[in-house]
Amino acid sequence: MAVRKNSKWFLEVLGPDEGHLHGVKTVLLSKDTAFQHIEVIEFGDYGRSLVLDGKVQSTERDEFIYHEALVHPALLTHPNPERVLIIGGGEGATLREALRHRSIRRAVMVDVDQEVIEVSRKFLPEFHAGAFEDPRTEIVIEDARRWLETHEDVFDAIIIDLSDPIEEGPCYRLYTREFYDLVTTRLSPAGVIALQSGTVAAHDLLNFSAIYRTLRTTFPTVWPYTAAVPCFGLPWGFQVASKERLSEPYSAGEYEGRMGGRINGSLKYLTGALCAAQFVLPKHLLSRIESESRVIEDHAPLYIYH
Amino acid sequence: MAVRKNSKWFLEVLGPDEGHLHGVKTVLLSKDTAFQHIEVIEFGDYGRSLVLDGKVQSTERDEFIYHEALVHPALLTHPNPERVLIIGGGEGATLREALRHRSIRRAVMVDVDQEVIEVSRKFLPEFHAGAFEDPRTEIVIEDARRWLETHEDVFDAIIIDLSDPIEEGPCYRLYTREFYDLVTTRLSPAGVIALQSGTVAAHDLLNFSAIYRTLRTTFPTVWPYTAAVPCFGLPWGFQVASKERLSEPYSAGEYEGRMGGRINGSLKYLTGALCAAQFVLPKHLLSRIESESRVIEDHAPLYIYH
Amino acid sequence: MAVRKNSKWFLEVLGPDEGHLHGVKTVLLSKDTAFQHIEVIEFGDYGRSLVLDGKVQSTERDEFIYHEALVHPALLTHPNPERVLIIGGGEGATLREALRHRSIRRAVMVDVDQEVIEVSRKFLPEFHAGAFEDPRTEIVIEDARRWLETHEDVFDAIIIDLSDPIEEGPCYRLYTREFYDLVTTRLSPAGVIALQSGTVAAHDLLNFSAIYRTLRTTFPTVWPYTAAVPCFGLPWGFQVASKERLSEPYSAGEYEGRMGGRINGSLKYLTGALCAAQFVLPKHLLSRIESESRVIEDHAPLYIYH
Amino acid sequence: MAVRKNSKWFLEVLGPDEGHLHGVKTVLLSKDTAFQHIEVIEFGDYGRSLVLDGKVQSTERDEFIYHEALVHPALLTHPNPERVLIIGGGEGATLREALRHRSIRRAVMVDVDQEVIEVSRKFLPEFHAGAFEDPRTEIVIEDARRWLETHEDVFDAIIIDLSDPIEEGPCYRLYTREFYDLVTTRLSPAGVIALQSGTVAAHDLLNFSAIYRTLRTTFPTVWPYTAAVPCFGLPWGFQVASKERLSEPYSAGEYEGRMGGRINGSLKYLTGALCAAQFVLPKHLLSRIESESRVIEDHAPLYIYH
Repeated sequence: MAVRKNSKWFLEVLGPDEGHLHGVKTVLLSKDTAFQHIEVIEFGDYGRSLVLDGKVQSTERDEFIYHEALVHPALLTHPNPERVLIIGGGEGATLREALRHRSIRRAVMVDVDQEVIEVSRKFLPEFHAGAFEDPRTEIVIEDARRWLETHEDVFDAIIIDLSDPIEEGPCYRLYTREFYDLVTTRLSPAGVIALQSGTVAAHDLLNFSAIYRTLRTTFPTVWPYTAAVPCFGLPWGFQVASKERLSEPYSAGEYEGRMGGRINGSLKYLTGALCAAQFVLPKHLLSRIESESRVIEDHAPLYIYH
Repeated sequence: MAVRKNSKWFLEVLGPDEGHLHGVKTVLLSKDTAFQHIEVIEFGDYGRSLVLDGKVQSTERDEFIYHEALVHPALLTHPNPERVLIIGGGEGATLREALRHRSIRRAVMVDVDQEVIEVSRKFLPEFHAGAFEDPRTEIVIEDARRWLETHEDVFDAIIIDLSDPIEEGPCYRLYTREFYDLVTTRLSPAGVIALQSGTVAAHDLLNFSAIYRTLRTTFPTVWPYTAAVPCFGLPWGFQVASKERLSEPYSAGEYEGRMGGRINGSLKYLTGALCAAQFVLPKHLLSRIESESRVIEDHAPLYIYH
Repeated sequence: MAVRKNSKWFLEVLGPDEGHLHGVKTVLLSKDTAFQHIEVIEFGDYGRSLVLDGKVQSTERDEFIYHEALVHPALLTHPNPERVLIIGGGEGATLREALRHRSIRRAVMVDVDQEVIEVSRKFLPEFHAGAFEDPRTEIVIEDARRWLETHEDVFDAIIIDLSDPIEEGPCYRLYTREFYDLVTTRLSPAGVIALQSGTVAAHDLLNFSAIYRTLRTTFPTVWPYTAAVPCFGLPWGFQVASKERLSEPYSAGEYEGRMGGRINGSLKYLTGALCAAQFVLPKHLLSRIESESRVIEDHAPLYIYH
Repeated sequence: MAVRKNSKWFLEVLGPDEGHLHGVKTVLLSKDTAFQHIEVIEFGDYGRSLVLDGKVQSTERDEFIYHEALVHPALLTHPNPERVLIIGGGEGATLREALRHRSIRRAVMVDVDQEVIEVSRKFLPEFHAGAFEDPRTEIVIEDARRWLETHEDVFDAIIIDLSDPIEEGPCYRLYTREFYDLVTTRLSPAGVIALQSGTVAAHDLLNFSAIYRTLRTTFPTVWPYTAAVPCFGLPWGFQVASKERLSEPYSAGEYEGRMGGRINGSLKYLTGALCAAQFVLPKHLLSRIESESRVIEDHAPLYIYH
C-alpha cells in the first residue's frame, strides 16, 4: 500500500526551484553536533544513508560510485602513492578505497567532527568496512585547515571529501585559493589531489567552474571529470589536480594496468576504460570552465544554495 | 521572497520512493489528448518544458543534451544516412538534430498524437527551430507500429524518441521484441537505430538492461551508452543498434572527423571525443546487462513505475 | 537554519488532491503490526504523535481537543453512565477521559491491535496518564465486532474511537448499519454512543453524512457535531446517538452543571457552553445530512480516500 | 490515473513545520503587482481560487463560509447599518455579502491593489456576483490607512478583509493599535467592525490573541469567534468589535429574526443559531486571550510565518 511506505519523505533542496525527494523508511539518527546536523536515514530507494545539514552525502545503494570515482583516478595518476591525507570523509569509505592501494603506507584522515565518525562506526559498517582499524590509518579530529597550517607532514595524495560549501557549515574555507595554496605546500613533488566539486547540471555550473578556475591558480594540471551518482539528484563533478605539469590523462589500457597491479580486491564502478573516459567532458562544460573567471578566495567564498 | 517563487511545484515521480521537484513559474498548457496528458510548464530551474503523462520530456535548459545524445551517435555510426525515420519525437528537436546531417534526403516523423506536435509548434519554437518546415520533412500522425506494418519504406536510421513505457500510455508496445523485429525489416542493410532506454541509476536498472537484452535478440550489434540529462533527475541510458555486425564504436578522432564533415552548424553537447567516451559503461552496468535475461515481449511488456 | 529542521517531512494524504504536511523532528517508531502500520513521530508543529496507516490519530499538542470532544458530550448526555465500552482508542486517552467521570464503575476497552496499546504505553505516557492501570479498566485484545457478537455485556455508553475506514485497514466493518445494530443490543435503555465520523469540509462530506444516515437507521436520536482538531488538517465531525428518543441537546447551563458535578479535574477544551454550542451545525451541513440517502452496509462499505 | 492529476502541486506554508498541499488543475494567472504576487489557480480539491503572496484567500468551494462568517455577525449586531466600509476584500465577495443587507445605502471598498480587483472581475465572477456594479458601491484604490487619514466619512460598519500580516506585504500596518484607533474615529456611535484574525490552532495562537488584546485597547466590546474554513488548512479566528459597550452576543432567535428581516436571499453557511453559537469559544482559547499581553503597535508589528 503506497501510503504505508510513503507518508514520510526527505526533501533535499538542490536549488531555489529544485529538490530531490525520497521516501523514508526510518530515521536511525538525527542530531546536532557542534558543527552540523547529522542524520542517518533509511531511504526506500537508496537504503541507509548519511545526511549532513540536509544534504545526502552517500547511500548504501550507490556510495561505491562516489567513493571509487573520488579516490582512484587521483591515486592511479600518481606514480606510487605511499602517503595519503583524507580531508573530511567521515563515513570512512574514502579511507576504505584509499587503503586498497597496496602502495599506501600511511593514511591520515582529518575530520573536524568526531561525531560523524562515531555515527558512521555505529550505523554504517559497510561504508568503512574495517578502514578505521587498519594499522596504516591515523584519525585526527581537527579543522583540516588548521591541521595543515600546524603540521609539516607531506603527502603524495590529498583527497578532499567534503560537504558542499554552505554559509553556516564547516567546509566553505576549504574551497578557497588560500586553502589550495596551503594544500600544495603539503604535497610531495608529484603529489595529486582530488575533490568533489558540485553538480555539473547545465543550469547550475558556477560551483564546478569556479573550483576549476581556483585550482588552476595553484596547480599546473587540473583535470575535471564527472560521474553519475544517482543519490545526488544531479550529475556530479570532480577534479584531479597535480603539482606536476601532466599532458593529459592516461589511456584506458594504462589505467587498467595500474588498477590490476596496485589495487586490492575488485572495484564495482570503475574500469580502466571508464577512468580514462570520464575525463572527456561535454562541450558545454568545456566552454564553461574555459570562460570562467571567478576565483574563490577567503574574502569572497562561494556558497551553494541551501 | 522564496514563497512567491515556490508555492507552485511540479513533482515528477521517479519511483515508488523517489521524486524530482521543480518550482513552477507558470503553466502554459495542461490538457488531455486522446492519448495522453500534455503540459507545457515554465519551470524556475529548467525553463519552458514539455511534460507528457507527468514525465518531463525535455526542457529549454538541457534539451540539447538529450537530443544530441539521442540522434548523432547513431547517425554518425552509419556510413551515409540518407533516409531517417523518427518515431515519436513530438517536440521536433530530434528532427531538428537529424536534419543537420547533410546526407539526409528524407526525414519521416511518425507520432501518434497530433496535439503534441501542435503544442510544440505553438509553445516550443526553439525546440523544433524550423524543422517541421524543412522540405525533407514528412509528418505522419499514426501509431508508429501500425505505420511500419502498413508501409514498406526503408530507412538508413530509425530514431525512436518515445516516452517511457507506462501501462496507460501510448508507447509500451514500441518497446517489445516484436516491435524491434518489425523495425529491423524497415532498415537498409547498414541501418541503425537509436533510442532512450530509461534510467541507469544503480537501484533501478531493469528497464535499461531488459531493453538491451531485447534488442540483442534482434540486432547483432547493440551499443548501450549513457548521458547526464539533468532534468530527468537520474542518469540516463541510450542504445544504438545496428543491423550490421560492428566490432566496437569508432575512435574519438573518427567521430570528430565525421561530425565535422557531415553536420551543419556546431553542436553544444557532443564532441567526437565524448561520442566515443560515452559508450564506456561503468562496471556495474556492464555486469547488469550481461546477466540480464528478461526479454520484453508483447505478451509480457515492461512498464516503468508511474 | 530552515533546512535543518525541515528536510524530513510527513505527508498525510487527505484526498486525491489534498495533503497536510508536517516537518518531522524524529521518528520514534515505525513498524507493521498484524493489522496496520504504526508510527510514533515527533512533529515540529504538533509534537509527539500517533500515526496509523499514514493517518494522524492524535498529537501531543491537540489530543485534548479530540478526546474531550469525543468522550464528554455522550457521557454528559447520559443520566448516569456506570459502564462504558471503548472500541479502539489505543492511545488510552479516550479511556483517560471516560475514567474522569465519577459515575463510571467499569471501563472495557476493546482494541484489535495489542501493539498500538504497547506502543502508546511506551511512547505516549501523557496520553493514557495512568488510565491503563485504573482498577475499573479492562483491556481486551480482539476484534470489537467479534467481541460484541460473543459477549452479552451491557453498557451505558459505547465510545467508538476508530481510524477512518480504509479498505486495507481493520476498521471499515465497524462503520456499517449491521455493526450499529449490534452495538445497540449491548446498550442499556438510555444508552448512548459517540464516534468520530470524518471531515466536515464542504468538498468532502460523504463520510460524515453517510454515517449520520446509517446511524439514523438504528438510533432514534442522532446528534452530529463538529470540532476543530488542527492536526487533522480539516474540520472534523462527530456524532452522539442515543437509544432513547431525546428532543435536543441540553442547554449550556445544564451541561455546565453536569460537568461540575460529575467530572474529576478540569477540562482543557470543553465548557458547558461549548458542549451545547458544538451541536449547532452550519446550514450546508444540515442540508447535506438531511438529503443524504447513503446507508453504509456490510455489503457496501464506505472507504475514505487513502 | 493519480499522477495525471497530481504532478502539479500548490504548497501553502502554514508555519515553519506545517503546510497545506493542493493538487493543481491549472494556473489561470500568476503575476506580480506593485504590491503583491497574485495567482488564480484551479485546485483539484477547492476549485478556482485566489492566492495572494502564496496564501490562499478564498476558493470556489468554501468562500461562502469565509465571507458569510466575516460579514454577517457584525452587520447583524448593529441595529441598522446603512454605511459600510470594506477594507481590502478584492474578490468582491465581502462586498457581495454586505450588499445583501437591505439597510445598506452606501458601500465603500478601499483596496490598495487595483489588479486584485481586475483579476477578480475577470476570473472570479461568482465571487463578486455583480457587487462591483451595484449602485451603492464605490471602489477606491488607495492604501486604506491613508484613505481613512484623509477622509472624514463615517460608517456604521467597517469590515476589514485583509491578507495575513507579512513583512513584505501590504497589510501589516492595518493590524496595529494605531490603525484601530483611527478606524474607531470613522465609526458612528453604534459602529461595529469585523475582521479575520488568523488561525486558532492550539499550537499557533499568538496572532489571534494579540489582535484580540490590541482591539481591546480601543473597543469596549470585542467578541472573538471561530469558523471552519477548510481551504485555510487550520481552524480560523474572527473578531467583531463595537464602539458601544454590549453585554454579550444576541440569542439564536434574535439573530434568526434579524437575518430574516434584513438579508436578501438565503445564506448557505450561517443560521441564526450558528451566529450565536460561533461566539462560544473553547476553553483553551478563552484562557489564551485572557492571559495575552501583547499589543500590536506600529513600532512593534506582528508578522505571521511566511
